[in-house]
Amino acid sequence: MKTEKTNLLVVHNASQILTLAGGPQRGPVLGELGLLENGAVAIQSGQILAVGDSSSLLAAYPDADRCDAGGNVVMPGFVDPHSHLVWAGDRADEFSLRLEGKPYMEILAAGGGILSTVRATRAASLAELVDESRLRAQVAFNYGTTTMEVKTGYGLTLESEIKQLEAILILNQEGPLELIPTFLGAHAVPPEFHDCPDDFVDLLCREMIPGVHAWWQTRVPDLPLPFVDVFCERGAFDLAQSRRILETAKDFGFPLKIHADEFENLGGAALAAELGAVSADHLVKTSLKDIEALAGSGTVAVSLPGTPFGLNEDEFTPTKTLITAGGLLALATDTNPGTSWCESMQFILALACRKMGLTPAQAIAASTINAAAAVGLQDRLGSIEPGKQADLLILNVNNYQQLGYRFGTNLVSIVIKRGRCFPVC
Amino acid sequence: MKTEKTNLLVVHNASQILTLAGGPQRGPVLGELGLLENGAVAIQSGQILAVGDSSSLLAAYPDADRCDAGGNVVMPGFVDPHSHLVWAGDRADEFSLRLEGKPYMEILAAGGGILSTVRATRAASLAELVDESRLRAQVAFNYGTTTMEVKTGYGLTLESEIKQLEAILILNQEGPLELIPTFLGAHAVPPEFHDCPDDFVDLLCREMIPGVHAWWQTRVPDLPLPFVDVFCERGAFDLAQSRRILETAKDFGFPLKIHADEFENLGGAALAAELGAVSADHLVKTSLKDIEALAGSGTVAVSLPGTPFGLNEDEFTPTKTLITAGGLLALATDTNPGTSWCESMQFILALACRKMGLTPAQAIAASTINAAAAVGLQDRLGSIEPGKQADLLILNVNNYQQLGYRFGTNLVSIVIKRGRCFPVC
Repeated sequence: MKTEKTNLLVVHNASQILTLAGGPQRGPVLGELGLLENGAVAIQSGQILAVGDSSSLLAAYPDADRCDAGGNVVMPGFVDPHSHLVWAGDRADEFSLRLEGKPYMEILAAGGGILSTVRATRAASLAELVDESRLRAQVAFNYGTTTMEVKTGYGLTLESEIKQLEAILILNQEGPLELIPTFLGAHAVPPEFHDCPDDFVDLLCREMIPGVHAWWQTRVPDLPLPFVDVFCERGAFDLAQSRRILETAKDFGFPLKIHADEFENLGGAALAAELGAVSADHLVKTSLKDIEALAGSGTVAVSLPGTPFGLNEDEFTPTKTLITAGGLLALATDTNPGTSWCESMQFILALACRKMGLTPAQAIAASTINAAAAVGLQDRLGSIEPGKQADLLILNVNNYQQLGYRFGTNLVSIVIKRGRCFPVC
Repeated sequence: MKTEKTNLLVVHNASQILTLAGGPQRGPVLGELGLLENGAVAIQSGQILAVGDSSSLLAAYPDADRCDAGGNVVMPGFVDPHSHLVWAGDRADEFSLRLEGKPYMEILAAGGGILSTVRATRAASLAELVDESRLRAQVAFNYGTTTMEVKTGYGLTLESEIKQLEAILILNQEGPLELIPTFLGAHAVPPEFHDCPDDFVDLLCREMIPGVHAWWQTRVPDLPLPFVDVFCERGAFDLAQSRRILETAKDFGFPLKIHADEFENLGGAALAAELGAVSADHLVKTSLKDIEALAGSGTVAVSLPGTPFGLNEDEFTPTKTLITAGGLLALATDTNPGTSWCESMQFILALACRKMGLTPAQAIAASTINAAAAVGLQDRLGSIEPGKQADLLILNVNNYQQLGYRFGTNLVSIVIKRGRCFPVC
């Protein structure tokens, strides 16, 4: 189990390797695991070199370091394509209000919800923000997430949004969890614009989006631009405002995402398809027409079942309709301090199987190769194929069907990120 | 953090100590945490010696070993008063059948369900049974369960039921998780009695219950008798059969438990109250009259929300009615290979808050002092009071309200069992 990045490593003795080979899985083919029995994976310089029979690969690379999978499942690391990992404080006090039945959007309207976390995040120093978020990054990684998209949106000023982007860059640099940044300046209308929300949209389009663009080009010119995302919902940004923000971002070259139809159907999903957004997320109240628009596009539909669970609501993304219509489905945690403080993709799989009728195989594909597509990284992440980044999990079970079936605990024993082994104890 | 059993240990620097002092909490007082801020616990020879202010206790015991709680919550270890921890094999294949909507009792009637695990458990050697179950015991312990009730019921012959009891005794002896045994020979009618279930009840009353009694008296004469439990449900044992089995067990001096009203209301809860059972468990379909009978008795009502969640059903124990009626409520995992493979009491708390409207404080009381009462051990376990066994958790959060609010991961950092510290990494 030596893991020098330049050395050869063979992960062998896997009862099942779930390769997820062949690219994102659209419509009814969802759930093709590319299952290889008694398999092994050869890794060099953080990349996958070969996938094959265990004894053949051990013979082909006799001098490689070895990692014994112990007769257990090896699969790609989870990609979590929707989280709000970087925040300060908590909202435990709101939890009881919500249990008493107070609607989430009412709490937000009263200055709680997102705005409560905005106050705490604005007040936190960069170091505090990094320290609090690092704890959550470590939990996500231990539960098998090797790449996580992370949104800003708890600053809502250019300066404090950039502080969140900086925290994401710092944590990504520290590793081992890889973070994919998203600018969500349009997460909520900040209190100072309560009576003139269109002025905040003006600010976003005229100063914040250009400002983030300029800062990014100076700070990390070699990295691709972050995503730009909008919370398109009554009480946040309406369809026209969302369109204006996303079109502005698109003009600057940002790839797009959208929060659509979490509580009401405003048409955000069709807008995402029209604008070529990489993903449209939540999709609980999405109409059949919008589902079909999504399914006919390249936009990935990201379902976040932890959120209705967290809010104790009974309605989830109509995933079966989406799959039948030929859409691309991904799953994510939506980790955030209000509605879904859950860093574990494994628990999201357990919910997806029960609440949306996915099979474990479908939920696994939606959490790996399709989730990689939801952050535009399907060519580098999400499957076990030669040339891809060596992000793997060794589970402590010998059959993938244990995922989803068992719930509330951790079935990962070793996380491998860019070829380095991290035992989960 | 040295932990010699005979040495003094002071667990200090706790933001909150949840003492749960004062005994089991009946009716609307449920949720009295006995919260002490900036507290410490002094431990000697595995027992709690003193509870008090952090600086005072450190001054009072200057030579004690110290365990720094790091400004986090200290609370009693969870007592899980209903599990089926000891089994062989798994039922992942049935999970997809159930997701497709096949009722659990239909799967059982077709020879699957419990009977599938009976075949695997009968076929397993004692060593295999212990090895498979040990993995689950370790998970439960790492998630903060310091004492767990464990039922037999996957053997259904005297010999194979005794093999399960032996496995429980062996795992309890190994520790650190403490196991409380229950004989559940009346878990299902075994296939060989399919056409003559009353003959199996005869066998239980004439041979198996006396046989277990005799074996126990020889094997561990110094230990209290195990509980005797019955699955009172259509398709398992009807009310008259349940009464006969429990009355026979009572005559032999066994303390009693019952599985009642999981899928239909057969009257098991009132029977439990009448016979003075220590607990009545499940209680999903229980009538108001039976709830009132329970509430007026000394029998603890044990709710198992992981089971409806695991089965993707929407109905849970009517805990609010029970509390209003003055009942004693406890929570448990029901860990088993069919309906609820979940060793984590923390996840059960998260479910209880959402699905049954408990506050985090109520759920904590129902998982500690009241759960201890559900196994008759409220005088030794379930609270942090001088003279009680030193079974404690140090969480990685500084406010107990994080329990329930966050879900799907582990908030325990150190488990202390009989005064010994076990870090959870």
